[in-house]
Amino acid sequence: MPSGAQKRQPKYQRIAAALKEAIAAGQYGPGDRLPGESELMGTYGVARMTARQAFAALQAEGLVEARKGAGVFVREFKVGLRRRGIQRLAVEVWGAGGSIWAADGHGRDPQVEFLGVSEKPAPAAVAAALGLPAGAIVRVRRRRFLLDAKPVMVATSYLDAALTAGTAIAEPDSGPGGIYARLADLGRKPVRFREEVRSRMPTPEEADGLGLTSGTPVVLVCRTAFTADGHAVEVNEMTLDASAYVLEYEFDAP
Amino acid sequence: MPSGAQKRQPKYQRIAAALKEAIAAGQYGPGDRLPGESELMGTYGVARMTARQAFAALQAEGLVEARKGAGVFVREFKVGLRRRGIQRLAVEVWGAGGSIWAADGHGRDPQVEFLGVSEKPAPAAVAAALGLPAGAIVRVRRRRFLLDAKPVMVATSYLDAALTAGTAIAEPDSGPGGIYARLADLGRKPVRFREEVRSRMPTPEEADGLGLTSGTPVVLVCRTAFTADGHAVEVNEMTLDASAYVLEYEFDAP
Repeated sequence: MPSGAQKRQPKYQRIAAALKEAIAAGQYGPGDRLPGESELMGTYGVARMTARQAFAALQAEGLVEARKGAGVFVREFKVGLRRRGIQRLAVEVWGAGGSIWAADGHGRDPQVEFLGVSEKPAPAAVAAALGLPAGAIVRVRRRRFLLDAKPVMVATSYLDAALTAGTAIAEPDSGPGGIYARLADLGRKPVRFREEVRSRMPTPEEADGLGLTSGTPVVLVCRTAFTADGHAVEVNEMTLDASAYVLEYEFDAP
Repeated sequence: MPSGAQKRQPKYQRIAAALKEAIAAGQYGPGDRLPGESELMGTYGVARMTARQAFAALQAEGLVEARKGAGVFVREFKVGLRRRGIQRLAVEVWGAGGSIWAADGHGRDPQVEFLGVSEKPAPAAVAAALGLPAGAIVRVRRRRFLLDAKPVMVATSYLDAALTAGTAIAEPDSGPGGIYARLADLGRKPVRFREEVRSRMPTPEEADGLGLTSGTPVVLVCRTAFTADGHAVEVNEMTLDASAYVLEYEFDAP
């Protein structure tokens, strides 16, 4: 960087950049405590507010986290979930009674917390996707997924309430192979999928539900499952802790 | 929400929630100015700092943006780029001399700014992905993509420098169909792709390069292109303005 640009950079940014370099160089590893405000004040000859701004900049980037009364720590990234978007939906997985989710954890111990099944008027976008009239009743299944006891995803699944009435899809336990196996039982086997991926900052409710520290976005995955004749049978809206996931899609050129 | 929980909620959060409701109800539309600090102070009987905290909360969520001296405005979401991860890589697109990127804009006027081609030692992860020894020289092609004159993506493409020496891949203009057509000319046609998708807050450099307002994450897409015999021939690291993109993957159950 030319020294002109360096001069124009505010002091707190220069301190933040120096701390970032030290983190990148491994001088401070994941979980390590950074120097305190007073130490930065002494080292760089700056006011407390400037030291705080430097920490705030690193926090906004999600590189460090402040722990109340204890200081500022290099963030420990927990990524560990490699979600193979296409392969995980192989019929062999759910057809054999397996859990799609278990495939993401790669030997770790993923857990599913069932948050309930209910009937509700469909949100407009869901009704449109499922080809139902506005306000049609849908079955809503909510689950939260945890890895090493930390929540990493909340998933809300919507299905036609009339189609799935009286099936295990209306029960907390949808049985071996889950709802895709039950849809297959009904002659509505899902064979084609569309996933839409977005990212944004979480709402306070989402940050709460996933235990997100500040500077952590959510990834939204909206999956629609289609039968062979092109009918949408399920819409699944997932909210993921962005720091916990890599989404992978591997495919042949069409 | 039970009134107990409401009582425990700090004042600034209640003001932020009220403003969010008003935005959701359409009372303030995209680009509209929210009431000023003084107005909030009067309406809610709070101190200026509390009004500021309410705005800061909305800003952190990416719902509004502060414009210096002008006030706080409801964010205008520019999403408009639907990136169809799989279909856009059809051989028919680049094989016919077309631009993969043009397919994302859907009739709008996407522009590509070429940022240069150079030779450099490969970053460790890139060398590993391309099956090259550590420190091998790679050809680096950098581009920035704009929609309606606003930058939305920066892409850095890495290829084996020895393989591509003396070809149009080493030139600013890689010719009709781009580098995939040139790789095909070399007998290394890419036929299989892996995309890895992550999201995090931007670094200050990334925020600058994409003109991101605060509260906007970046989406990182790392694509590896493979030949029919399974050799990786290109790694492309893309950094996307998360507010401008929906990534879509549509596929048959494997």
